[in-house]
Amino acid sequence: MENEYYGARVARLSQRMADANIDAFFTLAAPSMRYLTGFTGEEGFLLALQDEMHLIVDGRFTTQAQEECPWVDVIEYKGQFTSALAGLLISRRIHWLGFEKERISYVQAEQMRAALPSIAMIATEQVVEGMRAVKDARELELMRSAGRIADTAYDAMICRLRPGMAENEAAALLEYEMRKAGAQGTSFSTIVGSGARGALPHGIASDKVIEANDVVVIDFGVCYKGYMSDCTRTVAFGDQPRDVMDAYARLLEAQQLGLSRIQAGVSSRSVDTAVRDNLGEHDLSKYFTHGLGHGVGLEIHEAPRLSQGTDTVLEAGHVVTCEPGIYLPGRYGMRIEDTVIVTGGGYEPLTALSKSLVLV
Amino acid sequence: MENEYYGARVARLSQRMADANIDAFFTLAAPSMRYLTGFTGEEGFLLALQDEMHLIVDGRFTTQAQEECPWVDVIEYKGQFTSALAGLLISRRIHWLGFEKERISYVQAEQMRAALPSIAMIATEQVVEGMRAVKDARELELMRSAGRIADTAYDAMICRLRPGMAENEAAALLEYEMRKAGAQGTSFSTIVGSGARGALPHGIASDKVIEANDVVVIDFGVCYKGYMSDCTRTVAFGDQPRDVMDAYARLLEAQQLGLSRIQAGVSSRSVDTAVRDNLGEHDLSKYFTHGLGHGVGLEIHEAPRLSQGTDTVLEAGHVVTCEPGIYLPGRYGMRIEDTVIVTGGGYEPLTALSKSLVLV
Repeated sequence: MENEYYGARVARLSQRMADANIDAFFTLAAPSMRYLTGFTGEEGFLLALQDEMHLIVDGRFTTQAQEECPWVDVIEYKGQFTSALAGLLISRRIHWLGFEKERISYVQAEQMRAALPSIAMIATEQVVEGMRAVKDARELELMRSAGRIADTAYDAMICRLRPGMAENEAAALLEYEMRKAGAQGTSFSTIVGSGARGALPHGIASDKVIEANDVVVIDFGVCYKGYMSDCTRTVAFGDQPRDVMDAYARLLEAQQLGLSRIQAGVSSRSVDTAVRDNLGEHDLSKYFTHGLGHGVGLEIHEAPRLSQGTDTVLEAGHVVTCEPGIYLPGRYGMRIEDTVIVTGGGYEPLTALSKSLVLV
Repeated sequence: MENEYYGARVARLSQRMADANIDAFFTLAAPSMRYLTGFTGEEGFLLALQDEMHLIVDGRFTTQAQEECPWVDVIEYKGQFTSALAGLLISRRIHWLGFEKERISYVQAEQMRAALPSIAMIATEQVVEGMRAVKDARELELMRSAGRIADTAYDAMICRLRPGMAENEAAALLEYEMRKAGAQGTSFSTIVGSGARGALPHGIASDKVIEANDVVVIDFGVCYKGYMSDCTRTVAFGDQPRDVMDAYARLLEAQQLGLSRIQAGVSSRSVDTAVRDNLGEHDLSKYFTHGLGHGVGLEIHEAPRLSQGTDTVLEAGHVVTCEPGIYLPGRYGMRIEDTVIVTGGGYEPLTALSKSLVLV
């Protein structure tokens, strides 16, 4: 049955390879290898031919690969992976090899060109990423589980969050609760940004002590069976100055507007635009310094993006974040983020956490 | 003073740039950016000229970069980083731009070539990594702290480790204690491999329950102010079959032999060879399926390597692991790993944890 599950993906890959005019496809991106084979190791080289899959690994991963994906030919290499690759390609009379130009390093491409002089290397885009963007039923179930684990952990942490704790302590507690709730780890370094540190959108938890009047941004995600969750909440311990309360109310309104625009068939850029325009009405868009959202799945940032820089038609089964933020350097930051499944009629949220600013 | 600390590194970089015949150096590797500027963000593009440093970041990192490294010119880009880069290079009349071919993706190199038609891009190796391999006094102090934090966390976890706990629970406890002891996070996904799972050298903690007669491999590291620790211990809850006890005794002997060979002036490959030969005397080298060790610092795997594949003369200030392992597929795995500072007369260990197999 696992065999058939991955077999169906490989069959779809074959079709995409044919569409791209390549007779072999090479990837070294761990999430794509996991997607196509079930192999969970962090290093390897996958060669897909029309009807064979070969996974080239070093000695650290041989047993693991054999156990995790018996439906794949596992090859242990020593020295350069390119020798194993060249042998396979030549014996199978492959001429057109697709590779992912965003994933492979310049030196790896150089090594492959040197080892494969008779083979045309074709830079491909989105061959596997394009498959991964729309999640199947099993994947969605795993992502719902990841969201529930994240919620459980956050609720367990937030009722113990107090002024006087260091950001690091809050992060430690949150990550411990994630593991206890079933996570295999975090999907990124937990962000706990209090006071002026909240204005650093990617400032991970530090040893700064959280003060009673701080606004605190908490951005966190779990990894569950390979799938990521992503959620941000902003909290405070008591009433804040009017301008902060106002900004938060505007931000919440903008986030809800963004969510309401998410639906299959909609342009991803238009969702970002709607939120940016809404914040702009209150002169707040200049403090919103990043894109509105991104896809989530086997990676914490994947296709599609909700931003001005790209545009995609949202499809049912896409899983995306909606995360506007307001950052006033030296003062405070705030961000509200949900991850949702795009559906035909709108969206299904993967978390159900309160969005109240003030903890009671 | 911070200014001077980083300034000295930049002066050394300038010398290495001159040696490499380049008048500008470009890196997007976060650890190298941190090393040269103090910027702790995970994404950015650093351009070093002979007497200026420019850090090109997107809106998420602008404030953070300005606060963390006021001695650097911070440039916020929108769209493609290559436009900001091209403007700088042309206005400064730069002709020879070094870039790291192991760090940059194929597509990034392509984008740069397209945006910089008048500039010769020179693939460089080890320009910054070569500087980073030998740690200075401040770095060594941070690595000693990382080691102490890891020891504290492990000791707090190990006295609570019991049969019946899932591997994930043990990992959760260990990671929580790391944070409590002052870590900012882990340096990699914590490995807790019990019973047959221990034979997967990189099998991260799972929901498998640890049984009373399992041999358990625990490989863990903290991240402290950017610097990593790396340590592995193998434990059991009671006496094991004679062959397991024997194998562990051989492994411990081999690891101690490896440590005893570490000293400034020694070939890194010769240390790997000595350990491999020692295990071979007991017919165990076929179960030792990876290299003996690697450098540790701002990255968990960096120069130099202790393996058959490469050779480096060890220098005082190198920080390396010594981690032989024995893996019997389907049965058990064991590994003992210490991270040490190479010194003129031998080595200084960064951890002081017991190496007894049987917990008492």
